[in-house]
Amino acid sequence: MTERTANPRILPLIRDRWSPRSFDASAMPTEDLETILEAAGLAPSAYNVQPWTFLYAHRGDENWNRFLSLLVEFNQGWAKDASVLLYVVSDGKMRGDKVSDNHSHSFDAGAAWQNLALQAWHMGYAAHGMSGVDFARAAEELGVPGDHRIEAAIAIGRPAPADRLPDFLKEREVVSNRKPVTEIMRAGSFG
Amino acid sequence: MTERTANPRILPLIRDRWSPRSFDASAMPTEDLETILEAAGLAPSAYNVQPWTFLYAHRGDENWNRFLSLLVEFNQGWAKDASVLLYVVSDGKMRGDKVSDNHSHSFDAGAAWQNLALQAWHMGYAAHGMSGVDFARAAEELGVPGDHRIEAAIAIGRPAPADRLPDFLKEREVVSNRKPVTEIMRAGSFG
Repeated sequence: MTERTANPRILPLIRDRWSPRSFDASAMPTEDLETILEAAGLAPSAYNVQPWTFLYAHRGDENWNRFLSLLVEFNQGWAKDASVLLYVVSDGKMRGDKVSDNHSHSFDAGAAWQNLALQAWHMGYAAHGMSGVDFARAAEELGVPGDHRIEAAIAIGRPAPADRLPDFLKEREVVSNRKPVTEIMRAGSFG
Repeated sequence: MTERTANPRILPLIRDRWSPRSFDASAMPTEDLETILEAAGLAPSAYNVQPWTFLYAHRGDENWNRFLSLLVEFNQGWAKDASVLLYVVSDGKMRGDKVSDNHSHSFDAGAAWQNLALQAWHMGYAAHGMSGVDFARAAEELGVPGDHRIEAAIAIGRPAPADRLPDFLKEREVVSNRKPVTEIMRAGSFG
């Protein structure tokens, strides 16, 4: 499926997961979405505050068109065939006896997102994260409080052959490559 | 191992992974660290910019004491027995023909972190993320540029029995619980 790594010790699920744009427009059972989001919620977080909330719409439900309209036009062109659209929201505050800033709310929400993507793949779905979102309008239309942050949108669906896609997307339906690991690790300091 | 979920469809690796503090102080082969970080780098990221860099020190090497000293005292009390300490740095900018802000640099680095944690667990290690870090001093001592961000520190090691831990940590060596999935998912809007 991918040539991003030849390392036989990499977990196959981590190795093979990628982010297609071609989906079959099928419906997703509610139980499947709950399982995928439960896996997301098993990610670690600072002080275990679990700062993530997943706003969702199922294809064709009363929220679907609004969810789709908050994506940039390019993403609407393919995400329309996903089964579920999500907006991942994180809480920027720690809310204990007093309220304080949470340094890692976005980072921790990202950990939950990767669990989501892997669990979805494990169940025969694919998840595709998007930052091509009208974030200002999304915050307003989705009622997201000012001390929260919309991190990304996510499309989840059953992968389908690329020939479903419009021409401008067909050529982009490939597994993206990665930097060599030696480029992302540094001993002792950044410099 | 955990009672956080009774859902049999959750991937066992995602279900069972947790964040212990008791490590056996063994050395980690360089090849193991490279495999764990290669798995991290297979996470998705906006425009595939892969905004993550992992600064590392092996237990007892010339950077170890400095890496340890940047943690808050509470974390130093147990992280000293880890095999490797990491600081996860993300690049806040997209650096193409022009430089622009990257909305999801922290979120994407968090996705890489979850891959790291799962790959480590898969290999018999455990990874424990920390935001108990002197971030200002760390940025200076690790030479992290102002347009980058230190997201978290991570301790990786071989889990050991809790009786290795000092008393003030023994009682905290438990798998943390989670919110019910119905609390982290909302149809249509946040409110």
